[in-house]
Amino acid sequence: MEQTVITTEHGSGGAATAALIDGIFAKAFDNPVLAQMEDSAVVPGAGEIAVTTDSFVVDPLFFNGGDIGRLSVCGTVNDLLMRGAVPKYLTCGFILETGLLVEELKCIAASMAATAKEAGVTIVAGDTKVVEGGGGLYINTAGIGFAQGREIGARQIQPGDVIILSGNLGEHHAAILSERLSIDTDIASDCAPLVEMVRALMTSDVTVHAMRDITRGGLATILKEMAETSGLTFELKESGLPVTPKVRDFCGLLGLDPLYMGNEGKMAVMVPESDADEALRLIRASAYGAHAAVVGRVSAGEPGQVVVETAVGGRRNIDVLRGEGLPRIC
Amino acid sequence: MEQTVITTEHGSGGAATAALIDGIFAKAFDNPVLAQMEDSAVVPGAGEIAVTTDSFVVDPLFFNGGDIGRLSVCGTVNDLLMRGAVPKYLTCGFILETGLLVEELKCIAASMAATAKEAGVTIVAGDTKVVEGGGGLYINTAGIGFAQGREIGARQIQPGDVIILSGNLGEHHAAILSERLSIDTDIASDCAPLVEMVRALMTSDVTVHAMRDITRGGLATILKEMAETSGLTFELKESGLPVTPKVRDFCGLLGLDPLYMGNEGKMAVMVPESDADEALRLIRASAYGAHAAVVGRVSAGEPGQVVVETAVGGRRNIDVLRGEGLPRIC
Repeated sequence: MEQTVITTEHGSGGAATAALIDGIFAKAFDNPVLAQMEDSAVVPGAGEIAVTTDSFVVDPLFFNGGDIGRLSVCGTVNDLLMRGAVPKYLTCGFILETGLLVEELKCIAASMAATAKEAGVTIVAGDTKVVEGGGGLYINTAGIGFAQGREIGARQIQPGDVIILSGNLGEHHAAILSERLSIDTDIASDCAPLVEMVRALMTSDVTVHAMRDITRGGLATILKEMAETSGLTFELKESGLPVTPKVRDFCGLLGLDPLYMGNEGKMAVMVPESDADEALRLIRASAYGAHAAVVGRVSAGEPGQVVVETAVGGRRNIDVLRGEGLPRIC
Repeated sequence: MEQTVITTEHGSGGAATAALIDGIFAKAFDNPVLAQMEDSAVVPGAGEIAVTTDSFVVDPLFFNGGDIGRLSVCGTVNDLLMRGAVPKYLTCGFILETGLLVEELKCIAASMAATAKEAGVTIVAGDTKVVEGGGGLYINTAGIGFAQGREIGARQIQPGDVIILSGNLGEHHAAILSERLSIDTDIASDCAPLVEMVRALMTSDVTVHAMRDITRGGLATILKEMAETSGLTFELKESGLPVTPKVRDFCGLLGLDPLYMGNEGKMAVMVPESDADEALRLIRASAYGAHAAVVGRVSAGEPGQVVVETAVGGRRNIDVLRGEGLPRIC
């Protein structure tokens, strides 16, 4: 890799592609499976596997608290965790735009490698394509986890369940928007793999009914979708939603609602009320879970409704995100 | 889906994204796993699994003999097959550019669904992102197959092996280039899933040492890579390479070498000489294998060399593709 900028030659499939792969990806993701460089990786499996995929188009590529590489590992690892699976393998597909700095690509690969290590997953297969463009890149990661034989999902939610949020809302959204608008703030993205808190819950006596990570569309969108799938009512108290003063000020300034802002290292968990204290304790003791809080309850009232009790005592039904949201947040 | 063109709203993660997924992908790929719409799919696994990923950026999206959707299924299915695995699951990540016609996306999804059915794989997870652009799209597919407990790969190739090519060279490359240059030809892409011929080989008494599908960089690039990995010499006869008269004329016109042209439905297979007749018979009797031929032999001569005996009796060493190749061929 003597070149400093990506060119169409790196997409040839020939010598330049091989040099790119050897010089950057094989080095950063170094492991015996990937080193075989065959058409596909053969790895140990399990009786039941969890499978997911996510593409990342975040703009800018680097932001306070993370970068597209860390994001691409966290997003997919978290999707596996949300079904109670143990994340094991990642694949990564890079679509590079011509003009991308090789140095930036190296940083992103290093960030992916570090995050994969933190999350305990191995990158077992990859692919690189090049398109004409303005120096950006897109990353797809697909993930495979070993399922643990427990049904976890919106269909398992029961009336009487408590809704726990693993931490403060809105940080990733606020960090990306700050970068894009050049707003001077020190709000950092919450981008993180939730491996530790999910492992703590799954190896405890807590009965986990459902988990969902909070990404595009925010808490409102995922809760509305889960309420519809479960056919139950979710009731939240606006005053109980954990938001830092900095993010609250940021939202006030720009007229944003934290309920619709994307995170990248937070989840909502539904557990029976009897397990709520233990679940909260376990999450708070885990990495990235210090600010976890009970934010709502599930009832059998009106199927598919999410009702928020506002700070002044009113009630409003909330819906999924309508309209554009923030483009290219992840 | 009442809108006719993709907009940034379709990337929000909210209502418009859900309408896009329900209206197009969930319909086209309809199956009980995908219908659960959870963060990841939980599916039956196996003791050993094969894993691969591939992104597709082909330009144009539709071409004689296929489209980006068919290509995205074939490419990944073929990569699983090349390790002797039985392809089972695909994930698909769509990156849509604003301006893409919804009608085109529907055609592409339908083509993916039909090709997945032909190949016997289920699309179990998906993701959709939207970026600003000129109406194009990129597709990533990751694939999971059940490995069959046999070591198949370049390291298994032995001196004395015969190299079989499953059909004619260069069709996909010539078809894409014809579209791009508006050359009036009826050469169609060979884009196809090689499930049937691989199953025939794997369930026979033939000892398969290695298989590799021929994509970017052409036969020359994959053979050179395999020769280097195996530490052996591959000897080919130029006159024995199967190329149709139409593709040969096309190459003559544009100064192209079929050895470096990409296919998307062809493979090279290495088997012991004693199994060559049976392997050839099985491939020829399979879908997409009618024009299979023995094209070369493996010896222990010079490690990592691929030597071609030219039509006039000379010998030349061939290398991997140097330079650009044809941009965005797959």
